Amino acid sequence: VRPSFEEQERLRSVARKVVSRIEELAGSEDVECEPILVGSAARGTWLSGDHDLDVFIGVFEGSSLLPALEIARRIAPKFEERYAEHAYVHAIFEGFELDLVPCYLVEDASRILSAVDRTPFHNRYVSSRIKGLEDDVLLLKQFMKGIGVYGSELKVGGFSGYLAELLVIRYGSFLGVLEKAALWRPGEVIDLAGHSSQDHEDPLVVVDPVDPGRNVAAALTLDRMFQFVAASRLFLKVPDLEFFFPNPILPLSDKELCEQFAKRKSTLIMLEFAAPDLVEDVVFPQLRKAEQSVRALLDRNGFSVLRSDADWHRAVPSEMGEREMGGSGDCGVIRMLFELEVASLPRVERRVGPPVWEAEHAKKFVSSHPEPLSGPYVEDGRLVVEVARKFVEASELLRSQVSSLSLGRHLGPELRRGYKIYVDQEILKIGDLEFRAFMARYFSAREWV
Amino acid sequence: VRPSFEEQERLRSVARKVVSRIEELAGSEDVECEPILVGSAARGTWLSGDHDLDVFIGVFEGSSLLPALEIARRIAPKFEERYAEHAYVHAIFEGFELDLVPCYLVEDASRILSAVDRTPFHNRYVSSRIKGLEDDVLLLKQFMKGIGVYGSELKVGGFSGYLAELLVIRYGSFLGVLEKAALWRPGEVIDLAGHSSQDHEDPLVVVDPVDPGRNVAAALTLDRMFQFVAASRLFLKVPDLEFFFPNPILPLSDKELCEQFAKRKSTLIMLEFAAPDLVEDVVFPQLRKAEQSVRALLDRNGFSVLRSDADWHRAVPSEMGEREMGGSGDCGVIRMLFELEVASLPRVERRVGPPVWEAEHAKKFVSSHPEPLSGPYVEDGRLVVEVARKFVEASELLRSQVSSLSLGRHLGPELRRGYKIYVDQEILKIGDLEFRAFMARYFSAREWV
Repeated sequence: VRPSFEEQERLRSVARKVVSRIEELAGSEDVECEPILVGSAARGTWLSGDHDLDVFIGVFEGSSLLPALEIARRIAPKFEERYAEHAYVHAIFEGFELDLVPCYLVEDASRILSAVDRTPFHNRYVSSRIKGLEDDVLLLKQFMKGIGVYGSELKVGGFSGYLAELLVIRYGSFLGVLEKAALWRPGEVIDLAGHSSQDHEDPLVVVDPVDPGRNVAAALTLDRMFQFVAASRLFLKVPDLEFFFPNPILPLSDKELCEQFAKRKSTLIMLEFAAPDLVEDVVFPQLRKAEQSVRALLDRNGFSVLRSDADWHRAVPSEMGEREMGGSGDCGVIRMLFELEVASLPRVERRVGPPVWEAEHAKKFVSSHPEPLSGPYVEDGRLVVEVARKFVEASELLRSQVSSLSLGRHLGPELRRGYKIYVDQEILKIGDLEFRAFMARYFSAREWV
Repeated sequence: VRPSFEEQERLRSVARKVVSRIEELAGSEDVECEPILVGSAARGTWLSGDHDLDVFIGVFEGSSLLPALEIARRIAPKFEERYAEHAYVHAIFEGFELDLVPCYLVEDASRILSAVDRTPFHNRYVSSRIKGLEDDVLLLKQFMKGIGVYGSELKVGGFSGYLAELLVIRYGSFLGVLEKAALWRPGEVIDLAGHSSQDHEDPLVVVDPVDPGRNVAAALTLDRMFQFVAASRLFLKVPDLEFFFPNPILPLSDKELCEQFAKRKSTLIMLEFAAPDLVEDVVFPQLRKAEQSVRALLDRNGFSVLRSDADWHRAVPSEMGEREMGGSGDCGVIRMLFELEVASLPRVERRVGPPVWEAEHAKKFVSSHPEPLSGPYVEDGRLVVEVARKFVEASELLRSQVSSLSLGRHLGPELRRGYKIYVDQEILKIGDLEFRAFMARYFSAREWV
């Protein structure tokens, strides 16, 4: 995982080139600004094979960010503008994914104007403490990658690189981190600078040493945290290279899919619709929310869901950066899978009404069910009727109701433009390898515990 | 519902005959005792057609009950001894069901030695207050009979005759009782003598005017209470003779049974085994308990029960008293019916384990599921595996597990001697009219609400 001398030299030379181009342009345009190499590249903690460069362009408080953005636009011939709290430039530059981010140079991290202004402080904090621990950071990052908990983006909800670095600084080594993590409980607090000033509700709280009000682990979900905990315990007992480099998940063949169906004898329902043209950090939270809405619809109607999953498949696997650089307009498809414990129900359905002693409610309940199959009768003091159920098949219910669910600001409209539902064997029609690998992961669901 | 003059004369003459036979025998045997006519016959509150006579034989405190029991044994040529708190005699005497009950004559009802000693006090309390209200009592009793809430025996869990009388005394008339009942809530307290001395948890508390620590309505269940409440409201709005004399429930034909199956499309499972040779007050509590045990087994294993019922069918409808007088040894059958919302499940089953942070439990959980279909994975901080379910059909589960359930002291052994399970169409094999009427009541389940 450690970059070779050649790889290190190549990255440093590209970084130097970017920094000097910024300085040149700043000089010729008479813009007062300072290029700062940040992120793992700046700290010597990038994993071999990574091609990310983060260069911030700092301007003084009170001045405008626009001239810095203008300079960013002129570094690479091919680029696109992206927006977080404000605009920045993403470019492919000599084989590297280069982010050029204008920011303010503030006096201390508690006075930042935007989240990006904090980054140079992170850079300084880590750089001054990480010497000699770089290999431990690399091991920890690769371990986290291997077990699927690396990355603070919303799709993953895992550990950021900065968080991994802080853990190594705090516990002194890769193994030191794993030993401590093995004992973590929800609500664990790690406070490197000993200056925590705020209560957080997060499962793991790592107080930012440069900003006491901020939790560095805010994006980490409970489940990713405890996947890491479980894997740490297991690795300490039986270390194995496979934690770092797991066997790749292979797409399932038709035969393998059928074998899984036969083993489980459950009902699988797949919902598919076009993905919107948006970044993952916007799509994935909506995707999770939509998945939960559909689950709730099914559960509410008696169709008990065993498990579900959702993903975004690009249909044609794209080369790095191709899609991001403005694609074909085809953004792939959203797929949501629901595995049902109960996929069909009898026609008769219980409706539990108010207690008899709520006379007005009781009267209304009885008159709103004029011809029940059974009842009304009194059970545990409440009125009960048995009536004919509207939907006896989960797929019927879904077809009738899914478009009226709340599925998120962008996913809702996409679904309403058209969707497909596949039940059991119909799922075999989808040959897309990305989907077949998704099914393999779904059926295995094996984590390092 | 009011007995004719002839019916009244006939009952009085039989009662006189019993009382004088007791007095004669007491004289000739030199036993100091006092025959007391109690119950509805003594108070003029028996329903036309009822043939019950309760005669108590009181002896003084300190003496033995045995001579009184000996006298009781010599009143009717054909009798049997029964046991409540102590022995008494049940006989058929000139067409009446005659109970002859030895009891102690105590000074006041708080000093009783056995529950039966209280009865003469009830008799005195009611007799001195019921004059002119007899017809209201008869209406109330017949109303309660008609809607199915009359009788304090455990099979019914409804209102006793004494309770009906107290309600009429308290509220002045049949309609007065219904008007008050329409407003009842759980925990209602009625204290005629204004001397309540104890808290009760029962849904309705009617403090016994002759014994402040006792709740006359202790046997009344929440559901019977609120069936009465709901029916009272309905009757006050739309009075109808049908409340008192409902149309009889007719046994279902094969065709009608099949129609019900087709309408409901649920799965019905019937469990049948021989009934023990015991009285209803012993059998019915066990029957309810057994029904709940089986329901819990089904629910616990994912086979969701929509509704269930249980009953005791005598197979051959017996003439009044025939069975009680010592029968053929065939006591009929117990039948339990379970209607399932979910009767089959997929092979795959979720098993939710301990939270990851309980390291020891987590380790044990993982090692006790060595080859799951899916997982182990972390969900909401807990370990989850998906394994192969043992029973995918409710009937399979029942056949395998029912005999190891706790089904009550007498029903358990009976079931273990042999049972039958009928599923859906197999139920048509049972032609027994008592069972077919039970099915009719089950499917209708209509109460006066």
